[in-house]
Amino acid sequence: MSKFDVPYKIYLDEADIPSSWYNVRADMKNKPAPLIHPATLKPLKFEDMQPIFCDELIRQELDNDTAYIPIPEEILNFYKMYRPSPLVHAVFLERLLDTPAHIFYKFEGNNTSGSHKLNSAIAQAYYAKKQGLKGVTTETGAGQWGTALSMACAFFKLECKVFMVKVSYEQKPFRREVMRTYGASVTPSPSMTTEIGRKINAEHPNTTGSLGCAISEAVEEAVKSEGYRYELGSVLNQVLLHQSIIGLETKAACDKYGIKPDVIIGCAGGGSNLGGLISPFMGEKLRGEADYQFIAVEPASCPSFTRGKFAYDFCDTGKVCPMAKMYTLGHDFIPSSNHAGGLRYHGMSSILSQLYHDGLMEARAVEQTSVFEAAEQFARVEGILPAPESSHAIRVAIDEALKCKETGEEKTIIFGLTGTGYFDMTAYEKYNDGTMTDYIPSDDDLAKGFACIPDVKL
Amino acid sequence: MSKFDVPYKIYLDEADIPSSWYNVRADMKNKPAPLIHPATLKPLKFEDMQPIFCDELIRQELDNDTAYIPIPEEILNFYKMYRPSPLVHAVFLERLLDTPAHIFYKFEGNNTSGSHKLNSAIAQAYYAKKQGLKGVTTETGAGQWGTALSMACAFFKLECKVFMVKVSYEQKPFRREVMRTYGASVTPSPSMTTEIGRKINAEHPNTTGSLGCAISEAVEEAVKSEGYRYELGSVLNQVLLHQSIIGLETKAACDKYGIKPDVIIGCAGGGSNLGGLISPFMGEKLRGEADYQFIAVEPASCPSFTRGKFAYDFCDTGKVCPMAKMYTLGHDFIPSSNHAGGLRYHGMSSILSQLYHDGLMEARAVEQTSVFEAAEQFARVEGILPAPESSHAIRVAIDEALKCKETGEEKTIIFGLTGTGYFDMTAYEKYNDGTMTDYIPSDDDLAKGFACIPDVKL
Repeated sequence: MSKFDVPYKIYLDEADIPSSWYNVRADMKNKPAPLIHPATLKPLKFEDMQPIFCDELIRQELDNDTAYIPIPEEILNFYKMYRPSPLVHAVFLERLLDTPAHIFYKFEGNNTSGSHKLNSAIAQAYYAKKQGLKGVTTETGAGQWGTALSMACAFFKLECKVFMVKVSYEQKPFRREVMRTYGASVTPSPSMTTEIGRKINAEHPNTTGSLGCAISEAVEEAVKSEGYRYELGSVLNQVLLHQSIIGLETKAACDKYGIKPDVIIGCAGGGSNLGGLISPFMGEKLRGEADYQFIAVEPASCPSFTRGKFAYDFCDTGKVCPMAKMYTLGHDFIPSSNHAGGLRYHGMSSILSQLYHDGLMEARAVEQTSVFEAAEQFARVEGILPAPESSHAIRVAIDEALKCKETGEEKTIIFGLTGTGYFDMTAYEKYNDGTMTDYIPSDDDLAKGFACIPDVKL
Repeated sequence: MSKFDVPYKIYLDEADIPSSWYNVRADMKNKPAPLIHPATLKPLKFEDMQPIFCDELIRQELDNDTAYIPIPEEILNFYKMYRPSPLVHAVFLERLLDTPAHIFYKFEGNNTSGSHKLNSAIAQAYYAKKQGLKGVTTETGAGQWGTALSMACAFFKLECKVFMVKVSYEQKPFRREVMRTYGASVTPSPSMTTEIGRKINAEHPNTTGSLGCAISEAVEEAVKSEGYRYELGSVLNQVLLHQSIIGLETKAACDKYGIKPDVIIGCAGGGSNLGGLISPFMGEKLRGEADYQFIAVEPASCPSFTRGKFAYDFCDTGKVCPMAKMYTLGHDFIPSSNHAGGLRYHGMSSILSQLYHDGLMEARAVEQTSVFEAAEQFARVEGILPAPESSHAIRVAIDEALKCKETGEEKTIIFGLTGTGYFDMTAYEKYNDGTMTDYIPSDDDLAKGFACIPDVKL
């Protein structure tokens, strides 16, 4: 049936786990714009970031030149607990769609954190430990990143303080308990334990919180706590670097079995999974060695790429973080409450923003009922219950495969299946009950968010 | 550090998935006692079971002689979606315990049903489809089996009616939604849709249900519905046959890497996982080719092996099922409500009961707070959040490894890690909060259950 003589699931050998991360910035002609200081508007230097981030992670953040950065042995040992992750040939999905397309997915959900976030969490925890720190702070929205960092900190015996967006804290008690089982402290955000939290609570007494607000609290907490630093699960250059392990393994599996992808698809919230998955393929494209079609998929309710502005903006609501040049809906933008799951960040990775701006990748916005329809189709034949975030990529992979059915093209499609949906059953319940709704912000809605984007002239 | 030069995770190749199941009954000198008809006390014949079970599954149930039964190709293709499952070398647990013991675990949680139950579910759904049936009924307690059968039925486009123990239906809405996502109908038990359900509701208006009661309802529903049969996830000989895939893969991985287990440990509720894991090793022991120590681990709150009676008893509360000879606490026995997770069945597989009775395996009963203590230790170093059921096996594996630390013995321990705990966070929350309690039934408590065991003289 297939032109590929490949196993259903391609598991590379442990020895095939890449020994270096790949830094796509090294091959970018137009480098991503640097983080800048909101007061001086000057690019942040190493020393500026030291109160917030671990030293080695700052070096990685600033390094636009080194293509391959070796993965320390302790991190590689941890990776062996759940990597290489499988590249799965979606034969049952192909059969269901009756398409000539060949569909593969890189599955990152087979670890307890349930997503790809663990790839960067273990690296960030390692560098914190190596620097002799006592602990780290972070924020979490849907909960994957908080879970991943809790696991990583338990492994390296670091303290971990998680600020969890209040609405998730209340609606996802199980996520909270997983983090507590791994020894993390979990505080609903906005809290009364930080200055910014108290301020937000005073101004918006009934707020259920947002990611941008939880980031502000976590950064404040890190800066004021002795022996602590802040860690972030997406958006940053360092995170995309760590996540390149996804793409490197995918490429190795493709090379081993002669699979040449035409289209590579990933969901995009802050960009960590998409950036990681496409990195080595994008490197080939940037170096003129091969060509691929890259598609970022985002929710229509939070359309940073497809309807956002490419501008310098704050990374957080409380404006305690530096500013990044990125596709943004404005740091005050909060997606409609009917939106399920993650991918609700107002901004986007600077690396991906630059690549998108330069026409090297495309973006699509999809509505959530059609996303859950794809999720259900996929779950029933492929046997994995996908996370709502990952299901955005499934939606577009199915759309592309159905196009091939019309045109007769035998394209090879790879998408990133970033995680599992076990903690997202409330959203599935809405879909099963037929009460899930879609929301597309009007131009007026977006204009309100755009209004808060500062007018930065460098 | 280790005497084994093995990868952290041993993944066999797809081609190494066993092509036959192994039927341990073929090598048992004392065969398990047959199911008998409660009225005639005569062994059930093929025709007696036809209204309840699929024909091919009855053949497997009755077959005490065929050692290897080929796995149909359609089932093998489904197995390829999540098998071979990894045999993991627990290097980080070994290091934590500072033990000379070598610890391995066979991980069956890496599929969406979250447990080993899928191994038998897909087989049972396949035979139902092959027989041209319209659908199947079943019961589920903790929810793993119901999820697994829903997935299997979605794959073969069969209807699936699940009777879910009422207390789980209410406390585990996410489990319910996973089943609904896979297209199953889920009814809280006792319901008002069956005669036995109405009877139980009338007699016990506030009952939160039990597994034995849900079994009665599912059987009644299957018998009265055109084109339906009943399917069961544990206890039966056919289920242990399907689950032998766990042990066969474990043995293949051991043989490939020269691992010779001294102790093999599994949790035991109805016995499906333990029976599957130990089958091929038990076969060697029965044939005098090798010796192993087998340990069944059960909750102290539901101690079928360690404190039950070896006798003919009903498999269900409503007494609509046949009688089986097994270690039983009495078909009216319901474990204390403080008991978390599964392993709450009053009886036990007839095969395992016979093996235990013949002194071929041991059993231990453990209390749940010590089980969750082991679960947390394991989760923090091995990166997998274990199901409460599986954590019973972890508890005894750790105990055995700590004994080795005292004696200096370099034993090799293998245990079955049957599943993940994502849907059991309410129990973890109790443990994290320090409000989890233990319960050991008194002799008087047990005497009440024993009183309902019929006095069968054959």
